Amino acid sequence: MHGGAIREDIGGGPRLAERYRSVRELSAALVAPLSDADSTLQSMPDASPAKWHLAHTTWFFETFLLRDNLPGYRLFHERWPFLFNSYYEAEGPRHPRAARGMLARPALDEVLAYRAHVDAAMAALLERSDLKDLIELGLAHEQQHQELLLTDIKHALWSNPLGPAYAAPPSVSAFASAEAWIDHPGGIARIGHAGEGFAFDNEGPAHRVLLEPFALAESLVTNAEWQAFIVEGGYRTPSLWLSDGWAWVQHDKVATPLYWHEDEAFGHAGWQKRDPAAPVTHVSYYEADAFATWAGARLPTEFEWEAIGQSHDPAAGNQLDAAGAIMPSGSPDLFGDCWQWTRSAYLPFPRFRPAEGAVGEYNGKFMSGQFVLKGASCATPRGHSRASYRNFFYPHQRWQFTGLRLAKDL
Amino acid sequence: MHGGAIREDIGGGPRLAERYRSVRELSAALVAPLSDADSTLQSMPDASPAKWHLAHTTWFFETFLLRDNLPGYRLFHERWPFLFNSYYEAEGPRHPRAARGMLARPALDEVLAYRAHVDAAMAALLERSDLKDLIELGLAHEQQHQELLLTDIKHALWSNPLGPAYAAPPSVSAFASAEAWIDHPGGIARIGHAGEGFAFDNEGPAHRVLLEPFALAESLVTNAEWQAFIVEGGYRTPSLWLSDGWAWVQHDKVATPLYWHEDEAFGHAGWQKRDPAAPVTHVSYYEADAFATWAGARLPTEFEWEAIGQSHDPAAGNQLDAAGAIMPSGSPDLFGDCWQWTRSAYLPFPRFRPAEGAVGEYNGKFMSGQFVLKGASCATPRGHSRASYRNFFYPHQRWQFTGLRLAKDL
Amino acid sequence: MHGGAIREDIGGGPRLAERYRSVRELSAALVAPLSDADSTLQSMPDASPAKWHLAHTTWFFETFLLRDNLPGYRLFHERWPFLFNSYYEAEGPRHPRAARGMLARPALDEVLAYRAHVDAAMAALLERSDLKDLIELGLAHEQQHQELLLTDIKHALWSNPLGPAYAAPPSVSAFASAEAWIDHPGGIARIGHAGEGFAFDNEGPAHRVLLEPFALAESLVTNAEWQAFIVEGGYRTPSLWLSDGWAWVQHDKVATPLYWHEDEAFGHAGWQKRDPAAPVTHVSYYEADAFATWAGARLPTEFEWEAIGQSHDPAAGNQLDAAGAIMPSGSPDLFGDCWQWTRSAYLPFPRFRPAEGAVGEYNGKFMSGQFVLKGASCATPRGHSRASYRNFFYPHQRWQFTGLRLAKDL
Amino acid sequence: MHGGAIREDIGGGPRLAERYRSVRELSAALVAPLSDADSTLQSMPDASPAKWHLAHTTWFFETFLLRDNLPGYRLFHERWPFLFNSYYEAEGPRHPRAARGMLARPALDEVLAYRAHVDAAMAALLERSDLKDLIELGLAHEQQHQELLLTDIKHALWSNPLGPAYAAPPSVSAFASAEAWIDHPGGIARIGHAGEGFAFDNEGPAHRVLLEPFALAESLVTNAEWQAFIVEGGYRTPSLWLSDGWAWVQHDKVATPLYWHEDEAFGHAGWQKRDPAAPVTHVSYYEADAFATWAGARLPTEFEWEAIGQSHDPAAGNQLDAAGAIMPSGSPDLFGDCWQWTRSAYLPFPRFRPAEGAVGEYNGKFMSGQFVLKGASCATPRGHSRASYRNFFYPHQRWQFTGLRLAKDL
Repeated sequence: MHGGAIREDIGGGPRLAERYRSVRELSAALVAPLSDADSTLQSMPDASPAKWHLAHTTWFFETFLLRDNLPGYRLFHERWPFLFNSYYEAEGPRHPRAARGMLARPALDEVLAYRAHVDAAMAALLERSDLKDLIELGLAHEQQHQELLLTDIKHALWSNPLGPAYAAPPSVSAFASAEAWIDHPGGIARIGHAGEGFAFDNEGPAHRVLLEPFALAESLVTNAEWQAFIVEGGYRTPSLWLSDGWAWVQHDKVATPLYWHEDEAFGHAGWQKRDPAAPVTHVSYYEADAFATWAGARLPTEFEWEAIGQSHDPAAGNQLDAAGAIMPSGSPDLFGDCWQWTRSAYLPFPRFRPAEGAVGEYNGKFMSGQFVLKGASCATPRGHSRASYRNFFYPHQRWQFTGLRLAKDL
Repeated sequence: MHGGAIREDIGGGPRLAERYRSVRELSAALVAPLSDADSTLQSMPDASPAKWHLAHTTWFFETFLLRDNLPGYRLFHERWPFLFNSYYEAEGPRHPRAARGMLARPALDEVLAYRAHVDAAMAALLERSDLKDLIELGLAHEQQHQELLLTDIKHALWSNPLGPAYAAPPSVSAFASAEAWIDHPGGIARIGHAGEGFAFDNEGPAHRVLLEPFALAESLVTNAEWQAFIVEGGYRTPSLWLSDGWAWVQHDKVATPLYWHEDEAFGHAGWQKRDPAAPVTHVSYYEADAFATWAGARLPTEFEWEAIGQSHDPAAGNQLDAAGAIMPSGSPDLFGDCWQWTRSAYLPFPRFRPAEGAVGEYNGKFMSGQFVLKGASCATPRGHSRASYRNFFYPHQRWQFTGLRLAKDL
Repeated sequence: MHGGAIREDIGGGPRLAERYRSVRELSAALVAPLSDADSTLQSMPDASPAKWHLAHTTWFFETFLLRDNLPGYRLFHERWPFLFNSYYEAEGPRHPRAARGMLARPALDEVLAYRAHVDAAMAALLERSDLKDLIELGLAHEQQHQELLLTDIKHALWSNPLGPAYAAPPSVSAFASAEAWIDHPGGIARIGHAGEGFAFDNEGPAHRVLLEPFALAESLVTNAEWQAFIVEGGYRTPSLWLSDGWAWVQHDKVATPLYWHEDEAFGHAGWQKRDPAAPVTHVSYYEADAFATWAGARLPTEFEWEAIGQSHDPAAGNQLDAAGAIMPSGSPDLFGDCWQWTRSAYLPFPRFRPAEGAVGEYNGKFMSGQFVLKGASCATPRGHSRASYRNFFYPHQRWQFTGLRLAKDL
Repeated sequence: MHGGAIREDIGGGPRLAERYRSVRELSAALVAPLSDADSTLQSMPDASPAKWHLAHTTWFFETFLLRDNLPGYRLFHERWPFLFNSYYEAEGPRHPRAARGMLARPALDEVLAYRAHVDAAMAALLERSDLKDLIELGLAHEQQHQELLLTDIKHALWSNPLGPAYAAPPSVSAFASAEAWIDHPGGIARIGHAGEGFAFDNEGPAHRVLLEPFALAESLVTNAEWQAFIVEGGYRTPSLWLSDGWAWVQHDKVATPLYWHEDEAFGHAGWQKRDPAAPVTHVSYYEADAFATWAGARLPTEFEWEAIGQSHDPAAGNQLDAAGAIMPSGSPDLFGDCWQWTRSAYLPFPRFRPAEGAVGEYNGKFMSGQFVLKGASCATPRGHSRASYRNFFYPHQRWQFTGLRLAKDL
């Protein structure tokens, strides 16, 4: 299935129901390889149990669509909103994030029953045009959690010394990468979402930004290139690092990307030999920045990336089409394989205003301390991302499929 | 089943096999109410997953009996000893204690298969008289973990805001307690294990201790008495507390025993009204000591308790006979209901020597910073304890069934 | 003395010696009210002892000027570079930052002798035109530490329950503030340092930035306005806060600016009644952002501030002229009173390259996680700041004189 | 001056005034080598500034003697009791222990003036027989702080990379030690203080304890013996260690006694070559216990040590007579050189009752988690200790002069 087809659906009335069904089904498919116990694991506070992702995305529809808009709707379970609210202060107190791994109950089966209950009730709302935007938001939200589910379970399985696999290895072969650059002359660029389809509030308002001439690498940085960085002492050379990054390297004794061990890397297929030609993933902003300095280049700004990205197909490349093992391959597309760190802090665009109510907490309140990532990863549901999409994480985080594409001044 | 019967078995040749079977079966019965996910939970570093208890007790037999004594025995899984060694340094590196909750794999079924495999192999060793002591140790060890399994799963279920029950409430009714004292004239007492049956190394050597005249309360301190302590400001009066205890109260904002909320307490049957006449449980040494000071009494020494305990039936009282919900009842027996804090630090008896080899790490290396508890609790398998038995925990710990029996000078 | 006179000196050959003398003398004057013990205090890892500031700024001249450029120069003390290097990795290992408060030795007198030694040796270099830029950097560096010395000793004295004063209260009277706005039409602005005089590397390269129409408040936010924010529940309303900010408020139990207690504030003159008309200071970025949201406005970007600031006199306003007590007054100038938080993350300007060698660590390596502040404070030596000046701190820090000036979209 | 002379004073009426004077003078003499800044240092929460010790011991007299017993006495400074109360809850809130290093004010001179003020007022009380016990307690208390002052300033000076000396090295020469044992036949021993002179409440009541036959080493363990322990892998062999001790070694990366570096040790005379024949000091209980296990011996109980100690002169040996540098020498006496770890937890003796009121907090509330040490050290004022004296510290602490004397079963 090609993502382009999905994109045509955007804006369609009757097709929303179809998209609702397919997005919701993919979530369930993603947990099919997991036991109830697997789906209960929380291996670090940043991550959540697979079961929790299934329930939280359902809570979103139950709360903001059914409870608020469907007369007579009854909550599936009156205590579950307390468990499955993530961070919406306006929705009241909630189970502490770091304790999500204690939820052996409800069992996975009960959570799947919750999903069925909500899906059945949602049928009555999928045609209401006044709710279309909110439903789109719910679906985009669920797609984000699909990606998190995949990266969180990867971390959880890796935390087990037995290194269990989530699925059989996919057959991918990495493309050869060449050092080639996409030049951009600079000037005034149009940044932010301005089209018809769905976008998050943080992608707007569209506005103009002045760019200097620059070039963006055609290829992502590869495992082989990263290996050279290691061999040449990259992790032991303080002058390459931001001050906070060097403190992080020292404190956490970081010497490789996450999930590396000797010549293997841990992935959804368990421990496998690393492919030198595949893009490096699971590096932090600190690492990406240090690598770029070492390479005599720099990271792009989010505006530079977006200016180039506007002419690329956001649904192409190595992205998620169906449940199963996933793995970065090194496709020649701008989107896919991994999210790409930019040197732009995650901040509001000019004239940005969060939405009213609890949904306004979706994006705006995270605008301090994080960096923007662009593109899409092999765990991003195809059709979810676009050029204006702004992913964001703290500079030390690296359990997502995070990599880098170099830039330079012209 | 009355525990006295069990005690007669001790020393018997053919009956060891029977006891092996019944102890091992009880462990399996204890997890019957749990799902795979329940059995994976670790709600704090002090506690372990139910699944881990099942596997660790089995690892003990596999390692110290089968591997070392059964020619040709093959490990069930070569990586599992790394997972299921608890703290035996002599057995090499091991999975970190605080990460036991990450073991969704092996699944509960696989762990039960491991148990069956080891039990089958053990059949060949149960008649060997040279191994009898080590097998007895393995069974006593498993009984200790049965109690831990029950207290650990209680803590894990309590950590879930839904408060799921482990089993239906038992029908117990608390006895009325009267303030009555057992007097003891003091003098030289014989302390420590000297009999025929099994005992841990830390219960010996038997030796003499000089006691001053004292009295020990006939009844355990009750919930009603503890409530009076709270109402009179016990948790807010620094002069009642040890200095470390007061720091603990302030830091952890302690204001009731663990598992209390309003007029309910959490137990294996979920949240239930507290019975005022039942013995208070889940109090720390600091709390027990402060209460005793408030009551104008003190805690007994382990020697005082043991001197009295030698004339009581250690298999009487409210102890564990079978799987199911358990609950302190306030029986008039010295043993049972809860472990009873003494004011004795857990230290070696004169001329104590740990055993050679890994098994020598069983008890001796914990002889600093902990206090001795005597008796037995409603979660202690009947027949496991005796007057010389020395349980021990740190003074802040209280997730076991820990309570107190007052003493005073005469 | 008016700062304008100082600015004319910039670039002058013979006058550099005069400026060297006056900057160095101010540092010594700032510690005149302090005892040896006062000057040894370090009240938190963010702060440094006054004595350490005196020695570190001297180490800068000794290391980068004398050692590297004066043949035959002998270090004052061979172990002191280890003590007084701040964060220059290229200069080797150093005393841990958090342990600077252990340096009772060298005594304050010895540090003053160190200063005299270095000043005497520096005489030979002050005329060398090839070293002019580095000497200018050393002086600007020392001025930064003069401000830190004042804010650090304020924090240290505040940490003493006796609340000792550093100096007698100054006679300042706050101006009345009116809600008035400076409008800006937007368009392409020239940002960054391009003139003749000294500037830090992070102020360049000069480049163009596209601005939307906006307005900047003529006055700083006052204590009275902040009091209204408190009274209306500002610190208890999560919807006003960034997510990280709300976590900080909860964790640190923040309910007022730093140094407030009842109707007093702690300052260099000890505990004094707060002046409602004076600008609020000692607020974090999180607080400034929440206040702006509450007020229906926002913080300016650094580019907006700089575009306005280019037409204001950076040497006007309430800034530091001489040793003595200092206090925000609410002058009508853009510069002075307090540093003003912007919503811009501290990031490199396009084509920014740090200098080669250890001096290259001065600014660039801090470009993650911090926010830019503009202006100058009452503790900033007059003549030190300018429109392109980029001060930076983490969003939770507030022991500097940090306040805010609102902005809004037009 | 020989300590024996001091002991005769005990109980004398007129001589109390003389002893008051000499104890108080020694405290002042101990800080003579220190600057105001030195006396302000607090290098870890366990330690206190020298200045604070001077003031706290004075606060004790001001509070419990002058304030409570001298009509019309006015506090020297009304806020100082808040600063200089150590841990007496009954005396109200107080400055946090970990923040004592912030007290640059009051200056050392002011604290000395405080001492003079209190000493002058105390003259009126020194003859009152009803206060004699309380004054004796105040003096014993001050002697304890003299020792702490010496060990705390040692730690503070060691924390400075320059390693400043407190005083010139003393001329001591270590005695040769031979492996010789003092045998004891066991039986009922009389333990605790029963005589006429002053003793702390925790030394009583006197009571009988039953001992097994044992032997106590004539000599303390030496640096040379400890070096052998290190060379043979003592710090890398888990089987030698208590479980908590092994965790401490791993976590704190302990590989030598405190203050060792290569073949030197830090002392009051700065960094000096270690004397192999001198007793090892600055070892924790964990280390002492591991060494004893390695040596095939054990630590004595406090009762064993006291039974032997009763026939030794507590005022003999290497103890503190006057201000100046101190150093363990290896004298053949039982008392002196270093405090000696016992394997006894610090617990109440039978029928122990703390005194009423704030003074009752002196000892009793520390009776959990600590171990008893016996003897006296080179920093203990001669005449302060006795056979029944019970010093106590946590098992990881080692900044006191703590060493060991082996014991074995007979």
